[in-house]
Amino acid sequence: MSDLGSGDEGISGSSDLPEERHMKVDNKNFYFDIGQNNRGVYMRISEVKNNFRTSITIPEKCWVRFRDIFNDYCDKMKKSSDSVTADNNLPTTTINNLK
Amino acid sequence: MSDLGSGDEGISGSSDLPEERHMKVDNKNFYFDIGQNNRGVYMRISEVKNNFRTSITIPEKCWVRFRDIFNDYCDKMKKSSDSVTADNNLPTTTINNLK
Repeated sequence: MSDLGSGDEGISGSSDLPEERHMKVDNKNFYFDIGQNNRGVYMRISEVKNNFRTSITIPEKCWVRFRDIFNDYCDKMKKSSDSVTADNNLPTTTINNLK
Repeated sequence: MSDLGSGDEGISGSSDLPEERHMKVDNKNFYFDIGQNNRGVYMRISEVKNNFRTSITIPEKCWVRFRDIFNDYCDKMKKSSDSVTADNNLPTTTINNLK
């Protein structure tokens, strides 16, 4: 990601915060914004769909825990999709044998 | 829409979905629930604080992208906190020397 807008150093320390990210999937957009208040750094993840916005705010001190949980889910789904792929290979082999 | 009753195997394949997870930080609770509808598997992440609940819903096909973005933020904050830690080590050493 580019460093556009990092020239705006109005808020003390804000220049050290990572910049916002964006992810689009189907008709949904996710925005990752990093902010800071008197209780520390936080990440706000917003989901925007059809002009409706909802968001959650995650304090920095639990980002690693959050990441680990999310990562576990990715691993689990990868494993289950791997086994589905393995199952799907069987009929293909059968078809090849029939040629 | 809660999917209580994951013991209910009425929906084909639902028993393969990862179980829900929970994370508490300060006075906030985050819940990770996996569900499935006709458009596929999704994760709902809910933030609950003072009886107020807000949530985002992430389709499975973008979990890996989501995880990568989140991971980048963890890495960036780790780097910036490492440099802060390095700065903080100086006074600690001084205190040890005073013992």
